[in-house]
Amino acid sequence: LTGLAPVLAQEPLPSWNDTQAKARIIKFVQETVAEGGEGYVAPDDRIAVFDNDGTLWSEQPYYIQLGFVLDRVKALAPLHPEWKAKEPFKSVLDGDLKEVAKSGEKGLVELVMATHGGMTTDQFGAIVSQWFETATHPKTGKPYTSMTYVPMRELLDYLRANGFTTYIVSGGGVEFMRPIAEKLYGIPPQQVVGSTIQTEYAIVGDVPVLRRLPKIDFIDDGPGKPAGINKFIGRRPIFVAGNSDGDYEMARWTTAAKGPGFAMIVHHTDEGREYSYDRQSPFGKLDKALDEAKRRNWLLVDMKNDWKKIFSFEN
Amino acid sequence: LTGLAPVLAQEPLPSWNDTQAKARIIKFVQETVAEGGEGYVAPDDRIAVFDNDGTLWSEQPYYIQLGFVLDRVKALAPLHPEWKAKEPFKSVLDGDLKEVAKSGEKGLVELVMATHGGMTTDQFGAIVSQWFETATHPKTGKPYTSMTYVPMRELLDYLRANGFTTYIVSGGGVEFMRPIAEKLYGIPPQQVVGSTIQTEYAIVGDVPVLRRLPKIDFIDDGPGKPAGINKFIGRRPIFVAGNSDGDYEMARWTTAAKGPGFAMIVHHTDEGREYSYDRQSPFGKLDKALDEAKRRNWLLVDMKNDWKKIFSFEN
Ligand SMILES: [Ca+2]
Ligand SMILES: [Ca+2]
Repeated sequence: LTGLAPVLAQEPLPSWNDTQAKARIIKFVQETVAEGGEGYVAPDDRIAVFDNDGTLWSEQPYYIQLGFVLDRVKALAPLHPEWKAKEPFKSVLDGDLKEVAKSGEKGLVELVMATHGGMTTDQFGAIVSQWFETATHPKTGKPYTSMTYVPMRELLDYLRANGFTTYIVSGGGVEFMRPIAEKLYGIPPQQVVGSTIQTEYAIVGDVPVLRRLPKIDFIDDGPGKPAGINKFIGRRPIFVAGNSDGDYEMARWTTAAKGPGFAMIVHHTDEGREYSYDRQSPFGKLDKALDEAKRRNWLLVDMKNDWKKIFSFEN
Repeated sequence: LTGLAPVLAQEPLPSWNDTQAKARIIKFVQETVAEGGEGYVAPDDRIAVFDNDGTLWSEQPYYIQLGFVLDRVKALAPLHPEWKAKEPFKSVLDGDLKEVAKSGEKGLVELVMATHGGMTTDQFGAIVSQWFETATHPKTGKPYTSMTYVPMRELLDYLRANGFTTYIVSGGGVEFMRPIAEKLYGIPPQQVVGSTIQTEYAIVGDVPVLRRLPKIDFIDDGPGKPAGINKFIGRRPIFVAGNSDGDYEMARWTTAAKGPGFAMIVHHTDEGREYSYDRQSPFGKLDKALDEAKRRNWLLVDMKNDWKKIFSFEN
């Protein structure tokens, strides 16, 4: 389903260059599965958690979920004539993202609530699935679903082939990711942890539904990530991959386990093939975690030098 | 681990009498796995959810988690001299459960917060595990861990042997059940859905911890159960087992799926071997769901007549 050849039949991580990064990952995994060795971890405890935006797929020039929000505001605008005169909706409709940004987190929450709440969970899932069928990335023009990083999909496959259970732990909405996580990453719905909004059980006709309320339930970001891991998974991971300061606490939590623990930070260093950003970026800011990665010997993946290929559509 | 012989080597559900109940369960499971048949369900969608209190283990004369609360109040009392004069703590220390009950839900929440909050998640897990090592049921004198229903453990095994993934979906606390769910039921932590309290990430020394706050996060009961299933599992189950009105919405949600769906309600009818209660019980009240079970053709399990054996310690 992920479009990759069976991993056991080939060298692991073929889209990774033969650098230290690849060597360190393979060493860790080999030690994890070596029965009797010091690094051995029983299969049940081989939990690997992955951030999504900027770690598994692109998050520039803005989060893909924000692309969804912008499109949904436009699609819903005929039902909301008042949006023409009301910020931040007005600027979304005008296509003026700088003005949208000025509305800050409060404005963003308003946009999310207006586009993510007010329907049933089944309806929302259908809207998301349908959107992904045609929506394209503003820079590459490719479907958002092809904006995943091939080396990271190989890493997911490689870990699973070695008995790991792979989870997404993302600041993105759980119900935005679940409809596509299995197809893109081979990760089933129950292994997607993310931000949630409140739902309400109701009977419509004689049919039970869950209505999505315009109320935030849980933000799975920063210190929320270890809390989300504890709440949803109930075990401490031994492997974590992230790309920003929002993954810092999750990386600390994972590597503080008594046994083996591996943390990696994807560093966006490839302006040509993808993007180059870290300390100053409004999306995926990597500052504190960049310093700490060096200090704590977390693997810092240099996309430009460590990855042979980034996207599947590259020549 | 569950102390049961391998299920494939024997007739399924050996502790069930040869009544309609057993026949209906087996028929449903056989249809679920029959490829090409109308009732076939792909393995990934074979999700089964089980209430815990009164469905998998005994909930009389009071919830086992309440037994934990009472014991913890006594254990913590020396640190809280003020409890001697403060309800509902005073009545707990006096062993006067009738007075405790008078404090209502507000009093109960106070007791839960005082005993479940204020420590790290690791500390709480250790306290729970330790408690289960020695705590005994007030009527039988047996360890609480032996108060599970053998026929239900057989049912869990039988479903898993047929490709189902089994979850607990309980009003009880997630972190109260997780330390023992694997040992008692073969259900790993990530398949336990329940009520949660808020946690807070903190660094103590240089070690990251999650502190349990005395604040309720989510109540996984009644209409909260379908919401909890959606939040944690993200798929609609096809099999549900419960025993009270708190399971009604979850049973509706499960059986409203487009494909096959099976709901069962455990009816406590055996005063001799366990307890007999339904519409009037303060714990596990079964009233609306009892009427609806008949109306909707959900399986009503009559413990006295359908179960050959209830507890493993019976002769
Ligand atoms: Ca990220
Ligand atoms: Ca119950």
